[in-house]
Amino acid sequence: MTERNGIFITFEGSDAAGKSTQSRLLSDALRSDGHDVVLTREPGGSPGAEALRELILFGQAELSPRAEIMALFAARQDHVDQKIAPALRKGAIVICDRFTDSTRAYQGYGRANGDPAIIALIDRLDAMIGLVPDMTVLLRLERAQARARLAARGGREDRFERDTEAFHVRVADGIDAIAAAQPERFLAFDAAATVDRLAADVAQAVRARLPVR
Amino acid sequence: MTERNGIFITFEGSDAAGKSTQSRLLSDALRSDGHDVVLTREPGGSPGAEALRELILFGQAELSPRAEIMALFAARQDHVDQKIAPALRKGAIVICDRFTDSTRAYQGYGRANGDPAIIALIDRLDAMIGLVPDMTVLLRLERAQARARLAARGGREDRFERDTEAFHVRVADGIDAIAAAQPERFLAFDAAATVDRLAADVAQAVRARLPVR
Repeated sequence: MTERNGIFITFEGSDAAGKSTQSRLLSDALRSDGHDVVLTREPGGSPGAEALRELILFGQAELSPRAEIMALFAARQDHVDQKIAPALRKGAIVICDRFTDSTRAYQGYGRANGDPAIIALIDRLDAMIGLVPDMTVLLRLERAQARARLAARGGREDRFERDTEAFHVRVADGIDAIAAAQPERFLAFDAAATVDRLAADVAQAVRARLPVR
Repeated sequence: MTERNGIFITFEGSDAAGKSTQSRLLSDALRSDGHDVVLTREPGGSPGAEALRELILFGQAELSPRAEIMALFAARQDHVDQKIAPALRKGAIVICDRFTDSTRAYQGYGRANGDPAIIALIDRLDAMIGLVPDMTVLLRLERAQARARLAARGGREDRFERDTEAFHVRVADGIDAIAAAQPERFLAFDAAATVDRLAADVAQAVRARLPVR
């Protein structure tokens, strides 16, 4: 995946930080600016990736930790090949709710507690995909607030949401570590703000970083 | 996957060459010699890998070529982690009906027509799994005979069996090329022989290469 004319923007952050809502609102804002925008999400985003997502998150058989990571990257590869890369080649702005940083945070830091062998596996699979976001919007939310929002939301819990509190702390620390290592790529926001305030701040920050055409 | 005391034997060859039957018969023969034998197959072999196998072979959504390969290796990783590696650590002889050579032959030579980028992807994923068979039994069958056997067998065709005749020729040439490149690992047989004759020849050749204990 080298050839691309579009812009690739990802959203990352804790559960219930508002990633789906905010990625949709950013997509609306950029469309109203006249951009061609493709909004998508991970895991999933293409029919094959959705099928893999269902199997990974809700399937009866639990995959081994390494196999789960490889399956997540297989889903990501399908999503990139069938949706993201074609849109970028056409010059679109692609906004994706979660991408590789989530795998690194959840599987690498959360599940595997930063095990260097697992982080190395993720790095190698990431290099195979070969698509680094131009910008990553990081929505930060205190764990207590995330818990309250999740409880209010209800619905079926996937394998990751069922994990322990310590797991979620490792995930949050992991994403902060990733962001600290690549400050030029990340735009971080406090997700405790109101939806409209947050949306305005995100749109302003992203617009300021879009290349002038 | 470095630590192992057991022996890992794989079966490869054309469709309908008798791999399932012969791997079962070899397993019986080695058990009767007093060995602890685990018989398994790919894709599949563990519950998670079986679920992935079903999705890859019969799922509604067709994965991109690269994603399909990564999903096959995710299934293989689960199979290795949950079944093959634990058995090898206990010192068992593990017999597996198809393994990485099949991915290289079907996806690399058959589907991708030897595309160097796809072969390189398979090589990198293979290295991540890090498990090379001690012996590979290669059952060779003329395509005309394979076709006649497949027609007699009936049943539902998976994505690979539905492929064209030229595809199957590329797969057969591919597996021959892999075997030629690693002659010390492969034991090749003419699968046109009777079941019993073939089983006796395979058992004799494998026994001759087992380490003396």
